[in-house]
Amino acid sequence: MNDNQLRVDLRSDTLTLPTKEMKETMLNAGLGDDVFGEDPTVNILEDKLAGLFGMEAGLFCPSGTMTNQIAIKLHTRPQTEVICHQFSHIYLYEGGGIMSNSLASVKLLDGKLGKIEAEAIRQVINADDDHLPETTLVSLENTMNKGGGSVYTLDEIRPIRQLCKETGLKLHLDGARIFNALVHSGERPFDWGKMFDTISVCLSKGLGCPVGSVLLGSRVEIKRARKIRKAMGGGMRQAGMLAAAGIYALDHNVFRLEEDHERAKAVGKILEKAPFVKEVLPITTNIVIARLSQISPESFLDELTERNIWAVKFGRDQIRMVTHMDFTDQHLEAFESRIKRWEK
Amino acid sequence: MNDNQLRVDLRSDTLTLPTKEMKETMLNAGLGDDVFGEDPTVNILEDKLAGLFGMEAGLFCPSGTMTNQIAIKLHTRPQTEVICHQFSHIYLYEGGGIMSNSLASVKLLDGKLGKIEAEAIRQVINADDDHLPETTLVSLENTMNKGGGSVYTLDEIRPIRQLCKETGLKLHLDGARIFNALVHSGERPFDWGKMFDTISVCLSKGLGCPVGSVLLGSRVEIKRARKIRKAMGGGMRQAGMLAAAGIYALDHNVFRLEEDHERAKAVGKILEKAPFVKEVLPITTNIVIARLSQISPESFLDELTERNIWAVKFGRDQIRMVTHMDFTDQHLEAFESRIKRWEK
Amino acid sequence: MNDNQLRVDLRSDTLTLPTKEMKETMLNAGLGDDVFGEDPTVNILEDKLAGLFGMEAGLFCPSGTMTNQIAIKLHTRPQTEVICHQFSHIYLYEGGGIMSNSLASVKLLDGKLGKIEAEAIRQVINADDDHLPETTLVSLENTMNKGGGSVYTLDEIRPIRQLCKETGLKLHLDGARIFNALVHSGERPFDWGKMFDTISVCLSKGLGCPVGSVLLGSRVEIKRARKIRKAMGGGMRQAGMLAAAGIYALDHNVFRLEEDHERAKAVGKILEKAPFVKEVLPITTNIVIARLSQISPESFLDELTERNIWAVKFGRDQIRMVTHMDFTDQHLEAFESRIKRWEK
Amino acid sequence: MNDNQLRVDLRSDTLTLPTKEMKETMLNAGLGDDVFGEDPTVNILEDKLAGLFGMEAGLFCPSGTMTNQIAIKLHTRPQTEVICHQFSHIYLYEGGGIMSNSLASVKLLDGKLGKIEAEAIRQVINADDDHLPETTLVSLENTMNKGGGSVYTLDEIRPIRQLCKETGLKLHLDGARIFNALVHSGERPFDWGKMFDTISVCLSKGLGCPVGSVLLGSRVEIKRARKIRKAMGGGMRQAGMLAAAGIYALDHNVFRLEEDHERAKAVGKILEKAPFVKEVLPITTNIVIARLSQISPESFLDELTERNIWAVKFGRDQIRMVTHMDFTDQHLEAFESRIKRWEK
Repeated sequence: MNDNQLRVDLRSDTLTLPTKEMKETMLNAGLGDDVFGEDPTVNILEDKLAGLFGMEAGLFCPSGTMTNQIAIKLHTRPQTEVICHQFSHIYLYEGGGIMSNSLASVKLLDGKLGKIEAEAIRQVINADDDHLPETTLVSLENTMNKGGGSVYTLDEIRPIRQLCKETGLKLHLDGARIFNALVHSGERPFDWGKMFDTISVCLSKGLGCPVGSVLLGSRVEIKRARKIRKAMGGGMRQAGMLAAAGIYALDHNVFRLEEDHERAKAVGKILEKAPFVKEVLPITTNIVIARLSQISPESFLDELTERNIWAVKFGRDQIRMVTHMDFTDQHLEAFESRIKRWEK
Repeated sequence: MNDNQLRVDLRSDTLTLPTKEMKETMLNAGLGDDVFGEDPTVNILEDKLAGLFGMEAGLFCPSGTMTNQIAIKLHTRPQTEVICHQFSHIYLYEGGGIMSNSLASVKLLDGKLGKIEAEAIRQVINADDDHLPETTLVSLENTMNKGGGSVYTLDEIRPIRQLCKETGLKLHLDGARIFNALVHSGERPFDWGKMFDTISVCLSKGLGCPVGSVLLGSRVEIKRARKIRKAMGGGMRQAGMLAAAGIYALDHNVFRLEEDHERAKAVGKILEKAPFVKEVLPITTNIVIARLSQISPESFLDELTERNIWAVKFGRDQIRMVTHMDFTDQHLEAFESRIKRWEK
Repeated sequence: MNDNQLRVDLRSDTLTLPTKEMKETMLNAGLGDDVFGEDPTVNILEDKLAGLFGMEAGLFCPSGTMTNQIAIKLHTRPQTEVICHQFSHIYLYEGGGIMSNSLASVKLLDGKLGKIEAEAIRQVINADDDHLPETTLVSLENTMNKGGGSVYTLDEIRPIRQLCKETGLKLHLDGARIFNALVHSGERPFDWGKMFDTISVCLSKGLGCPVGSVLLGSRVEIKRARKIRKAMGGGMRQAGMLAAAGIYALDHNVFRLEEDHERAKAVGKILEKAPFVKEVLPITTNIVIARLSQISPESFLDELTERNIWAVKFGRDQIRMVTHMDFTDQHLEAFESRIKRWEK
Repeated sequence: MNDNQLRVDLRSDTLTLPTKEMKETMLNAGLGDDVFGEDPTVNILEDKLAGLFGMEAGLFCPSGTMTNQIAIKLHTRPQTEVICHQFSHIYLYEGGGIMSNSLASVKLLDGKLGKIEAEAIRQVINADDDHLPETTLVSLENTMNKGGGSVYTLDEIRPIRQLCKETGLKLHLDGARIFNALVHSGERPFDWGKMFDTISVCLSKGLGCPVGSVLLGSRVEIKRARKIRKAMGGGMRQAGMLAAAGIYALDHNVFRLEEDHERAKAVGKILEKAPFVKEVLPITTNIVIARLSQISPESFLDELTERNIWAVKFGRDQIRMVTHMDFTDQHLEAFESRIKRWEK
């Protein structure tokens, strides 16, 4: 089985390793103690991203879960409610943090490809009634992981922004893969910044950094966010080494995301012809979701693993593959030939 | 509008006023300080209900929301998850308490008439994964308010009990209207007690008491529940006056619930022919839900109010009516004649 | 031991039983469903007390713990801090509710007789620093239970009020025994109402009601308090029966508190000469604290119990006695003769 | 003022910058996605530290606040209580996290040099009473920051360990500067590991790493800790770069802490003769606390800053200086000459 020697790891774009160039930048970063607000590189990264999105301030954190959870804390109080899609990362994959960190309730909406619409949101805003938690926040995710990397456009966001304005709701964006969305749509970060109260941007996914996410918002909110970060344990000391990777990634790794999208489409086409694959969901960015038939995801993944291809279960009859910097044309070829051989 | 003088109030069975006999029992109750555990009447009520359901101990509380919320605290920790129907009272109408009191997450199931099945539960028990809150509790409601007063039978509960046993989940019953269910099914409290870790029983709904609910469970759990009740502010002093009403109700007002069920069916039949009523949901106990067409619930309720009939909105195109002790044959006749007159 | 037949129960003023007259008022109270806001007697009680203290609104709750805990929820958020005396009831005896209900931190001050001063408060208000919870609330207790029923005067409150105004802190009064304080000082509720953002008033202590406390505050805060009460499980249905007792007590039982204070002083004098009593703390209202020597509180209480006198342990070398409506001159005489006999 | 050009920064040992050698180790570390448990360097660091302390497992986190707060979550539930010194870092400087993360109450003890004794702990363990939160955890800090870097010895810990065993309490060590303590006392990590249920060890203080702390405990507890870390946002991806610094520090920077201690003593001696310094607290490790008179800490710090010497306020009349890797003999000389010049 020599042909299977090259590991084809499509489990997540979080798996990317920092490149030599990125590491060298990290080595040379100016450093200081960020808890004292004195790490120059962290400050540059926060300013750079805030500027890009036209927002006032940023806060560097160890993970996207932390930036999301801090945002939810900013915009809720105990006994209030968050509206989000039932497949949102913040609800499904952050350890129940909406509840355990913020003591807030959730109203879960359905919607195609993991996206929700203004009208559906309007219908579930709670009335002023003692029995009901007060609705205070709408949270969107772009690209939408569980929606197969689907993309919201600005035209879809505007009516939601408008509704939030009218009703006094805050609007947060889980932008774990926002650059995948923007590279796809050709829209500008600056125009997205105008739509949201806070945006969480991940550096450790498609952008290829080892660690970190940045929360963007108003100066006042980011000041409060620093305090929340402290008690959650997210205050790091010489974080500039990590931030340097983020600066490098913003300068070098954004536009190459298009390559990941192209390869994702190629992966999808190959997968469509694979045994047991009933359907591949429409591919927009770097996420491929395949629906299976006559096999459990577990057994299907076992078959893949035997071929040194790695993916993850994604719901009862689905598996997910994610393309990324470390999935090159060479990996794509290996993937194709192994799947083809399987078919025979 | 002389004919409309008699108020026909079908908004809830919580509206019942204590009868003269009930009040006299309250007046003569032996009293003590229940925070010291010394109120004899509270102790009798707790023992009486525990005995009826074959459970070890009981705890008298000011409301059904408190008994439910204490039970959820008993069976969860922060970062764990409760499985319940998406229309459960504990999720919808207790002010977000699952989250704000227990910091627990919810997994919301769908299911006919507000009921859920073992197989659906099994599918959503979380795997042992850092991203997911640990599933620890299943909560059922019987009768099911938002399911139109629908009734679970023991045969439906057994597989859920079995599943919970296998998987180490706790099972709680929101028995706000458990006696309506038992009177309907003819099943015995004792057999229900064997199925659940905790049961919350309300006295202030169909049973006609002014205030109070009792949480039933094991001796160990009820001891912990007392401590939780203290911090939630549910420790009352000479609560025996309220408990006396509960004892009276258990002795006199259980079997008469059948009358409420009969009248609910009559109400349903009359309502079917009312203008704008598209459909009346199947009526099992004392709750009547009517689906409307070509009118908003608000306008429909306005029309009723003009006829001195009172009901409540219950979702986007529905209204709810609940029969109870203070809705007599006289009220039923008034209801019928006013609805008939409207039709013409 | 015939002489010991009359039980002399000085454990707490919460032990009082409602009188025949009070009960009759309860029996005849107009009732409705308070969760719908329709219980006329509850509404009267809330208005009456709010009026008395010159505050905008009131909220009837099942216990003083609940009114205090709701007030703390109103005035804090997670990661904020409450300043109070280290012997405060809200910190010591409410089950850790400041933390478990409000997720707020505590700054504990020392101070004579359980009272704190403006200057000491000023010193511990947290600076604006990420490491520190934001100080948002000062809570006082009057009379101060663990301070031996000590009384704050308005002159002591004014500088604290002033400080809170300057620094944007909220000021809450745990008035579990506020009428004992007012009867002692001759000050008026109306003047006290001007000093605080919220006041909790207990009806089930010296005033002799079976159940209940009222939280007073602004209209906006009490509206929010209703919502918090719901999720805590404090929404009761026909609570008017309990409220009627409160109205009766306010009309009949306030000025008689002076009798309890007189008897407390008599108890203190007798106790001073009892074996093992090292010192009796200064007695201002209805609480008597005796410091013991050469005996543990447990053994001392055993000695008392053998004489059918009941009290409670109150710290490592102290016991507490509380006078109340059901401790009459007859009881006082019995107490005196039994203690005297012991001495011999 | 040429002489003041060299910055003498004694604000904290968290300020140390990674050395060239440390950075090169970071650059060459084997990496993987630690959320998948696949970062080899993180795994090595966790095993190395666990082995050193003879504990079963370790968990790498972004900060010492997070390792402490996770430990508190492990050992408490809402409505339980933590016993610690009133000057503990976990109570004073972690943003109210004991309450906001764990909903636990605190019992604050006094004790010389920030240390507490078994007998004092025994006295404040709460009885089994509904009014009181259940005591579940004792937390110690070694060295004790606010105690002036004071050191517990094993002989002081043993009776506390014994008490915890008897009473079923958990025992946590905030070992932010545990290696300073061990280097001072000559005791072995292995013997300390036997004393505690969990230990938090910081790498970013005297050890000179840019970021990170490790929580040590049993396999079962560390598994639960991973889940808690996820919801708190502490799951990092290619954290191996940071962990590599930790491994390097354990191999190279432990024994040199003795130098910091020597320099701290020298700093103390110099400071004793400085204007306005009333007293310097006994110096055991790398922390110097000076008590001032006739000047506010703020003004004193201003005076220092003018001399390019940096320290922090530490209570009402105190300032703190901390020696560390980047405070060399050259800095010490500069410090001495500037203070001496000031005296004249």
